Amino acid sequence: MAKELKNFTKRSDNYSQWYNELVAKADLAEQSAVRGCMVIKPYGYAIWEKMQRQLDDMFKATGHQNAYFPLLIPKSFLSREADHVEGFAKECAVVTHYRLKNDPEGNGVVVDPAAKLEEELIIRPTSETIIWNTFKNWIHSYRDLPLLVNQWANVFRWEMRTRMFLRTAEFLWQEGHTAHATREEAEAEARRMLDVYADFAENFMAIPVVKGVKTETERFAGALDTYTIEAMMQDGKALQSGTSHFLGQNFAKAFDVTFMNKENKPEYVWASSWGVSTRLMGALIMTHSDDNGLVLPPKLAPIQVVIVPIYKNEDDLKAISAKVEPLVAALRAKGLSVKYDDADNRRPGFKFADYEVKGVPVRLAIGAKDLANGTVELMRRDTLEKETLPFEGIEEHIVKELDDMQASLLEKARKRREERTITVDTYDEFKKRIEEGVFILAHWDGTPETEALIKEETKATIRCIPMDGDTTPGVCMVTGKPSKRRVLFARSY
Amino acid sequence: MAKELKNFTKRSDNYSQWYNELVAKADLAEQSAVRGCMVIKPYGYAIWEKMQRQLDDMFKATGHQNAYFPLLIPKSFLSREADHVEGFAKECAVVTHYRLKNDPEGNGVVVDPAAKLEEELIIRPTSETIIWNTFKNWIHSYRDLPLLVNQWANVFRWEMRTRMFLRTAEFLWQEGHTAHATREEAEAEARRMLDVYADFAENFMAIPVVKGVKTETERFAGALDTYTIEAMMQDGKALQSGTSHFLGQNFAKAFDVTFMNKENKPEYVWASSWGVSTRLMGALIMTHSDDNGLVLPPKLAPIQVVIVPIYKNEDDLKAISAKVEPLVAALRAKGLSVKYDDADNRRPGFKFADYEVKGVPVRLAIGAKDLANGTVELMRRDTLEKETLPFEGIEEHIVKELDDMQASLLEKARKRREERTITVDTYDEFKKRIEEGVFILAHWDGTPETEALIKEETKATIRCIPMDGDTTPGVCMVTGKPSKRRVLFARSY
Repeated sequence: MAKELKNFTKRSDNYSQWYNELVAKADLAEQSAVRGCMVIKPYGYAIWEKMQRQLDDMFKATGHQNAYFPLLIPKSFLSREADHVEGFAKECAVVTHYRLKNDPEGNGVVVDPAAKLEEELIIRPTSETIIWNTFKNWIHSYRDLPLLVNQWANVFRWEMRTRMFLRTAEFLWQEGHTAHATREEAEAEARRMLDVYADFAENFMAIPVVKGVKTETERFAGALDTYTIEAMMQDGKALQSGTSHFLGQNFAKAFDVTFMNKENKPEYVWASSWGVSTRLMGALIMTHSDDNGLVLPPKLAPIQVVIVPIYKNEDDLKAISAKVEPLVAALRAKGLSVKYDDADNRRPGFKFADYEVKGVPVRLAIGAKDLANGTVELMRRDTLEKETLPFEGIEEHIVKELDDMQASLLEKARKRREERTITVDTYDEFKKRIEEGVFILAHWDGTPETEALIKEETKATIRCIPMDGDTTPGVCMVTGKPSKRRVLFARSY
Repeated sequence: MAKELKNFTKRSDNYSQWYNELVAKADLAEQSAVRGCMVIKPYGYAIWEKMQRQLDDMFKATGHQNAYFPLLIPKSFLSREADHVEGFAKECAVVTHYRLKNDPEGNGVVVDPAAKLEEELIIRPTSETIIWNTFKNWIHSYRDLPLLVNQWANVFRWEMRTRMFLRTAEFLWQEGHTAHATREEAEAEARRMLDVYADFAENFMAIPVVKGVKTETERFAGALDTYTIEAMMQDGKALQSGTSHFLGQNFAKAFDVTFMNKENKPEYVWASSWGVSTRLMGALIMTHSDDNGLVLPPKLAPIQVVIVPIYKNEDDLKAISAKVEPLVAALRAKGLSVKYDDADNRRPGFKFADYEVKGVPVRLAIGAKDLANGTVELMRRDTLEKETLPFEGIEEHIVKELDDMQASLLEKARKRREERTITVDTYDEFKKRIEEGVFILAHWDGTPETEALIKEETKATIRCIPMDGDTTPGVCMVTGKPSKRRVLFARSY
C-alpha cells in the first residue's frame, strides 16, 4: 500500500500524467458525475481554505468588504456591454425552466414544459453585469465612492477540455468589484490588487511571479486594461495566476451608473474588477511538488508538523505519548497545526508514505531507542533529508525548519525561473528554444496579427508586457518593425 | 436624514412591514433583478460571516472537515430516493442548454438550440444525492468510517413567495453530510449537531430554542427522523432555525454505498445530514430588534463599539482623537471590533441614528466638555440608556457592558418565550389563544389527519415533539384519543 501510494509517473516521463496522479493520490480532488465539475476533497479544500483566509485578510486590510450577489443572471444583462457579451455569452449554463414533474409515462421526473421562463437565466460566468446593475442603487454621490466590494463565489463556464483545478466548468473564486470617482483611482486600484496578488503568491504560495499588462488580444472582455501575474511551472509553461482589470466606464455606461461629483454634476463611475480562483491550487501543486508527491509551503499546509510514534507495544506507546504531548501543546501554542498520529490501524511505513504524498512539511518520528537516547528523527518534505536531533530544543528547531522551507521553496522556484528565462532576437531561435519549456523575452511589433501568427506557429502566447525589467526598444523578431520593449512569451496552461 | 433613517413602521402596527423596512434601512439586503434572489449587502454579509466563522469553528471542533461538491445535479439523481424526489424534484432551476449564440435577427443573444443537454441538470436544492454518489468512491471499509463532511454553499429552490433571508430562491447555507457504520452512531451524530446548533443559537445569537423531533408530516424528504430547533419571534410565531436528519440507510441504498464491516461482510452505510442557512439572519433580526432598528448580540456585531467625536473645530477634534486613540488600540488588543468615526461629512446626529439602526451594541460620544471633565458618554443599544462615565476605566466598563448585553438579550428572549408559552387542553381554547401569537403545548393523538385538520383550521402546525419538558400522557384536544405527551404548536415563518 505504501509502495502503491508513492508509485507515481515521473515528472520527466509525463508531466501531465504525474499531475493527474498527484491530484488523486494526495486526496485533493476528483471528477464528479457532472461533466467538467470536480469534487474538492477535504484535504484539497483545507489548502484552499488556508489560501482563502489569507487573501480575505489581505482584502480587508486594504479596505474591501464582502457581499453576495445572485448566482443567476438574466440573459439580456450579458448583451449590455458589447465586448463582454462576445467574451462570456457563449459557453455557459442556461436555466430555461423552473419546475420538474412526474413523468406521465412513469419514468422518474421530466421537465414541466409549462414552467418555461420568460427570459432565460445564465449561471454567472463572472458577475460584472449583475453587480453593476446593483451598484446603480448604491451609488448616487461622490460620497458613496469609492465602493470596494468583494465576493467569494462559485462560477460556471462550460469548458470543453477540463483539468482538475486548472480548468473546470464550475470553479470557486473571489471577484472584487470596485467603483471610483476618477479614472486614476480605478487604475490605481487595479494595480494595487495586482500587488496584493503578487505579495500573496510570493510570500504565502512561495511562487515568484511576473507582473505585467496583457495585450489587447488577451484582455478581459469589457476591460480597457488587464493586469496579470504569471508564474512558471516546473515544465517551463506559464500559468496565469491572477488578473485585475481596469474597466473604464464601460459597465457604468452599460448599466447607467452615474454619481453627482463635488460640483454637483453627474458623471459615469469608473470601475475595476479582479479575481483569483481554485486555479491557484494547480499553480501551487505544479510549482513545488516532486516525484514523491505534493510539496506544500508551510504557510499553506493544513498539517504543518506530523509526529509518528514507532512502537512495539502499549507500554512503548504510552512512554512516547507522554514525551510527545507537551511538545504538541507547545507547538500548537505557537499557532502551528500539528498532528500526532498514534492510530494503530496503519503501520509507520504507510504513514510516512501518506504524509509524504500529502506534502506535510515536517515529519517527526520517535521510537523507544529515541526515548532512551533523548533524540527524535526529523524529516523535511522538500529535501527529504532525515536528521536525528536532540529532543531538547526540538520545538525551536521545527520553527526554524518551517521558516527555512518557506524561504527555500520560493528561492528554488525563483532560481528555476531565472535559469529558464531567456532573451531571444530571431524568430528562428525563438521557434527552437520555445520547445525547451522556457520564458522568452523578445521584441514584438505590437500588432495582433504578429501575435496571432506566433501563436499559430509556435503555440506560444504573449503572457504579458512586464511592468519591470528591460525597456530598451528594438525591432520585432518576426516583422522587423519597431518594438517599444521586450515582452514575455511562453506556452501556457 | 437622521429622522428619515429612524422613521420606521412600529412593530405593533405592522410587524411584517417593520421587518422589511429594517432589512432595507440597516443595509442588510435588497431584492435583485432576479426574481426571489436577494443581494446580501456588505453590512448584512459581515454579520453572516461572523456566524459562519463561529459555526465553522464548532464543526471543526467536533471533527468535521469541509469539502466542495458540484452545483449541478443530474436530473436522474433526484429520482433515486423515493421520498427525496417527492420533496425536492419540483420547484427547481433546470439547466437544459450549454451555449448561447448571437441572435440571427440581431437582438442580442439567444439560446443555441443545437446545444441541448442530453440529460438536464438541476441546481442543487440540497446535496444528498450528489454527495452520496461521491461517498460511494470514498467508503470501502469500516476503517473509512465515520466520514464527517460539511459544505458551505449556495442552494436554489424556486420559491413562489419570498421574503428577505426567511425564504429566498437562492440562499447560502452549510450542509453537513456524514456516514457511519451503525444506526446508533448516525442517530447520535444527528442529535449531537442539533446540540451544536442549539449551543450556537443560545450562546452566540442569544436566541433560546426548543429542541425537538419533527412529526412525520414535517420530516425532511428521505429522512427517518428530523430534529429541529424552534425559536420564538417577537410576534409569537415560530421560526425553524436549524434541522438535522437521521437518514437511515436510504441514501446508501439509493446510491449503493456499502462498507466491509469488521467481520468482512458488506453492509449499507448509515447517514445523517444537517443544515443552517442565511435564514438565521431573519431569526437574529426578528428576535432582538426594536422600533429604532437592529439590535445585535455583541458576539455577532461587525462593529461592537463605535466612538463618535463631537467637535466644533479642528483643534477640538485633534484633542479628542489624542485622547481616544489609546482606548481604540486597547479595545482592539482585547479582540473587540471598534470604529472611531471622525468622518466630517456627516453630523453626529446622523451618525447616532445610523449606528442605532445598524445595531452597534455600544456607542461612545466624547466632546470638548467631556475632555475637560474627564468623562465620556456611553449608550447601550438594547436599553438606549445613556450614562456619563469617567473616561478612566472605561475600557473595562465597555467589556462589562458587552457581556451584560449578550446575557441580557438571551434572558429577555427567554422570558418572552416563557410568558408566551401556554398549556391548553381544549380545541376551543386552542383556536382562541393561537390568535394571540403564542407557543401552545397541547395533546395530540399522533395522526397526520388530526395534524392536518388543526393546520387547516388554525394555521398552526406542530413545530416539534420537544425533547425536554412534560412527558405526561393525556388525551388529544381534537379527537379525545390517547396522547403520549404534549407537543409544541405555533404559527410559523
